[in-house]
Amino acid sequence: MAGSIPDRSNVDVRMRGFSARTTVEAAVEWIDSVLPDFSQLATEDISLAEAASRVLACNVTSGVNVPNFARSMMDGYALRAEETQGASSYNRLSLRILGTCLPGNAFASRVGAGEAVRIMTGAPLPVGTDAVLPVEETEIDGETVLVLNPVSPGKHVGQVGEDIRIGDLVQHAGRVLRPQDVGVLSSIGIRKVTAVRRPRVRILITGNELLPAGTPPVDFQIPDANGPMLSALVRRDGGESIPFDIIPDDPEAIHHAFLQQADVVLVSGGSSVGQEDFVPKLLADHGELVIHGIAMRPSSPTGMGRIEGTLVFLLPGNPVSCLCAYDFFAGRAIRALGGRARDWPYRRISARLSRKLISTVGRVDYARVIVRGDEAEPISIGGASILSSTTRADGFVVVPADSEGYPPGAEVDVHLFS
Amino acid sequence: MAGSIPDRSNVDVRMRGFSARTTVEAAVEWIDSVLPDFSQLATEDISLAEAASRVLACNVTSGVNVPNFARSMMDGYALRAEETQGASSYNRLSLRILGTCLPGNAFASRVGAGEAVRIMTGAPLPVGTDAVLPVEETEIDGETVLVLNPVSPGKHVGQVGEDIRIGDLVQHAGRVLRPQDVGVLSSIGIRKVTAVRRPRVRILITGNELLPAGTPPVDFQIPDANGPMLSALVRRDGGESIPFDIIPDDPEAIHHAFLQQADVVLVSGGSSVGQEDFVPKLLADHGELVIHGIAMRPSSPTGMGRIEGTLVFLLPGNPVSCLCAYDFFAGRAIRALGGRARDWPYRRISARLSRKLISTVGRVDYARVIVRGDEAEPISIGGASILSSTTRADGFVVVPADSEGYPPGAEVDVHLFS
Repeated sequence: MAGSIPDRSNVDVRMRGFSARTTVEAAVEWIDSVLPDFSQLATEDISLAEAASRVLACNVTSGVNVPNFARSMMDGYALRAEETQGASSYNRLSLRILGTCLPGNAFASRVGAGEAVRIMTGAPLPVGTDAVLPVEETEIDGETVLVLNPVSPGKHVGQVGEDIRIGDLVQHAGRVLRPQDVGVLSSIGIRKVTAVRRPRVRILITGNELLPAGTPPVDFQIPDANGPMLSALVRRDGGESIPFDIIPDDPEAIHHAFLQQADVVLVSGGSSVGQEDFVPKLLADHGELVIHGIAMRPSSPTGMGRIEGTLVFLLPGNPVSCLCAYDFFAGRAIRALGGRARDWPYRRISARLSRKLISTVGRVDYARVIVRGDEAEPISIGGASILSSTTRADGFVVVPADSEGYPPGAEVDVHLFS
Repeated sequence: MAGSIPDRSNVDVRMRGFSARTTVEAAVEWIDSVLPDFSQLATEDISLAEAASRVLACNVTSGVNVPNFARSMMDGYALRAEETQGASSYNRLSLRILGTCLPGNAFASRVGAGEAVRIMTGAPLPVGTDAVLPVEETEIDGETVLVLNPVSPGKHVGQVGEDIRIGDLVQHAGRVLRPQDVGVLSSIGIRKVTAVRRPRVRILITGNELLPAGTPPVDFQIPDANGPMLSALVRRDGGESIPFDIIPDDPEAIHHAFLQQADVVLVSGGSSVGQEDFVPKLLADHGELVIHGIAMRPSSPTGMGRIEGTLVFLLPGNPVSCLCAYDFFAGRAIRALGGRARDWPYRRISARLSRKLISTVGRVDYARVIVRGDEAEPISIGGASILSSTTRADGFVVVPADSEGYPPGAEVDVHLFS
């Protein structure tokens, strides 16, 4: 593994291109090798109201029975089952109605022979009764209920602990909480849960040519597209995006930003080997630049490393490259640090190529496609700067490094953007 | 259609059961018939930073070209393509380097014959040049660049508008904005977008027996599970859940809550025909109770209607019924009011039943299943009160009203909880 990562000690190659490129697989292996185990992730206590879609950090065991009393499952009459034996519409057995039992309160008195209590769904079963006869199987005659059917003991009664018992493992650590999970946690009296803390992600947008996101372009200045895109990607993957600024192409400013607190730093721009691309050197000088230059298209100038325990990803400034490098590398780390599955969150479908998809042996290609029915059409304008290609596309096909591409009609896996 | 909805004018049946039940299909048809068209939905202007996952309310057309100047796509040398003709490693053509052109600024002077400019990716092409020769295809000799390969005019140059042209329709109304869509909107200088306003959903939790969510059960009082669950479901479906309270079983209090501002009201509990279930009557008296009682299990006591233009869903208090009724009816309305696809957000897979799944003809069944590989195992404890069955389950199978169920090995569609 170590052997597959080129030596980056001479990173200062400046405008001379990459001497050697790491494979995508080796880069992913390196990321996985430095990610902490689930049990080592930072946690925080959060309220139930914020818990949906969060990742549970610890197992949750119930301290109560649900229900914690025998309760009626129907609207009807609580009675002694043995007293209904032989009842039918031709043999109506009558019981005296003692009163009504509503949810939330115990019925005041014990129910004796020949007696019944009107009961609502959810109400506790009165002492002395053992079954509920649904209202549909009764007739009323003043203060008397006429039983039209027999019931067996326990019928229409929710027993203590039949949903959850004391000591039951209700939710496992690592669970991404669904809406109904939150309901279950509430039902066992839990108000706060220990969740994996969202990884804090600092996004550094570098480039003297950049205007703040959403500013109309002026002269040769262009609005930043990567900041809002990366922010949204980070949130999608369960991270917390720290508000970002555009940083000038100035080593001091970038070094300063590196040292602010974060779990992950994403640097957009300045990641290549051009004259102004000093970010890799900065990382190598002050931390560890482990990988720089990856055999893929787009995103080949991607780099990654660490500085004081913080994972740093150097993402190309070209927006398609930035998106692709995020998806292949940074997103994986952010999902894992948040306790989520490392794999892509994209749904995968199988489709037939409507035309040839050419790739160069020796690099992984990230080919945007439009999906129509079960056909995938590669988008021809594939430049790393054409961000609109990723919005016209429905998804992408990954062509492995050892492939020259696929002929028309070939069956490919498409990862659907979502 | 109208004929398939039973007359609910005599809603005050109290503990006598439902005289007739509406079909699931008729209930869905009614919901669809009263939902506004997309173009009638309320909108709001939001900043780009909040735009991901929101639904665009209007088409967005670009007012600028992207790029809005010809720019270099490589690190290399801007030059006149015609001057590189015939160049090779055996025939190095030399050009004088005038200086460096960085992103963000125009190069100060016009480039003449025999001249070139060092250029970085993204920098504007200097006047007088028409191509970029990548740095890898050059050698440097002092202030002279040696050309090792010819390039054609326009090579490695990003042309004006090649990503997006003025007047291009960049995003369609109705689009759920992806991270890269937000990037594209930023790149055309858009800082705010008009999004469909999130529908405001008021959740009313009724029941004298209920304690606030997450409170340990005491005596015959139980913690509310439906409030936090419904809140999470509403947010999942793009709605905004107004903070909820538990309301006592008191017609005045519920009527008052009905009249607070909201797009949709969900009432949990009190929806059946039991003695304390006056919510349907309240809705009939003050608004319109269109449907009450649906041929399904669980959730048969579900009701729906309108009060002063607000859609009201009466959801059973039993938590599984509440979840199921939300999924079949309320969620659909909330998604539609937020401009989203009406269908379930659950991924659907095909699986074989590991054992028999029994259903009663005449009602739709919502059967929770555990999925193992390509097998689906129905969960046997299926009571409407057993919320933990929806957390143990991986998803559910819908058995249509005309089916008696399926034998072991039958192929069924499973909707995966997420």
